[in-house]
Amino acid sequence: MIEVEVKAHAPQDKGALEEKLVEIGARRVGEEFQEDVYFNAPHRDFAQTDEALRIRKVTDESSEKIFITYKGAKMDEVSKTRKEIEVGVEDSHKVADIFQNLSFRPVATVRKNRTIYSLKDLVITLDEVQKVGSFVEIEKEIEEGNDTQEALDEIFATYSKIGIEDGFERRSYLELMEI
Amino acid sequence: MIEVEVKAHAPQDKGALEEKLVEIGARRVGEEFQEDVYFNAPHRDFAQTDEALRIRKVTDESSEKIFITYKGAKMDEVSKTRKEIEVGVEDSHKVADIFQNLSFRPVATVRKNRTIYSLKDLVITLDEVQKVGSFVEIEKEIEEGNDTQEALDEIFATYSKIGIEDGFERRSYLELMEI
Repeated sequence: MIEVEVKAHAPQDKGALEEKLVEIGARRVGEEFQEDVYFNAPHRDFAQTDEALRIRKVTDESSEKIFITYKGAKMDEVSKTRKEIEVGVEDSHKVADIFQNLSFRPVATVRKNRTIYSLKDLVITLDEVQKVGSFVEIEKEIEEGNDTQEALDEIFATYSKIGIEDGFERRSYLELMEI
Repeated sequence: MIEVEVKAHAPQDKGALEEKLVEIGARRVGEEFQEDVYFNAPHRDFAQTDEALRIRKVTDESSEKIFITYKGAKMDEVSKTRKEIEVGVEDSHKVADIFQNLSFRPVATVRKNRTIYSLKDLVITLDEVQKVGSFVEIEKEIEEGNDTQEALDEIFATYSKIGIEDGFERRSYLELMEI
């Protein structure tokens, strides 16, 4: 699966932004806390190859879910479009233990509150990232091999509708945290 | 967790062996089909380091379960005692895809029918391994840092009770398949 994704700095007035999202037909899906532990590889430097490997713990009111996520290098110059593979696992400590026995090293932990909206086949998230700041992300998943431009056009048109025309950010939260 | 484990070639008469197991108090837990895909690492050769990384798919009458398992090097000269970390995952293809994107390569697939018996804190399994043969394994899990000798004594005493005094095998099914 390819994740076509564009991130922007959030405007100051979060309330007004959420109102606009509802106006254009977005549906509030929920809110969750995410804790991502990023690992680097022993045989290549993911900061150089632009890959990512993480264990994500997602907590909401009713449950805790754990995922392993691999992200490939970004595929264009304007967005964060990249290959993404995510799989649910039953225990984060055991996965971390396996990674470390394979000589992968935990390099950083990113914690955020994420409010999720859905608009047709787009997912729009408002993120409050600890030590980094507030961001809006709009994302669409497409099959590998499909053209990403159509999805990008749809994403930027949606940004425009909610009044965001600049302040786009290609760097990951991990990269922003390390500045 | 440390897996203290000894494997032996199974005697010809499997029926007689199962009768002996029941005589000494073992309880038949069930039967399952296991398919293990083993991976090698890009940065060291697990055949040299005596480690293993696999995706196991376990199928029985009612369910299919998937696990990632890491095994460390064997810790003594007589048994297959080693560190083992195993975690349940929701999808084998996605895990294989992540491993391959991290440059781990699938090297072999081991398929077997496993009949499982339980005897106090021992697990006794009768394995029919495709292309390899028939084996008995007796295994006990102990906490890391604990002495393995007591567990080994218990395991060899149990082998003795079911009439197996030789034919022990330290090589893994993966190694035996590659001969």
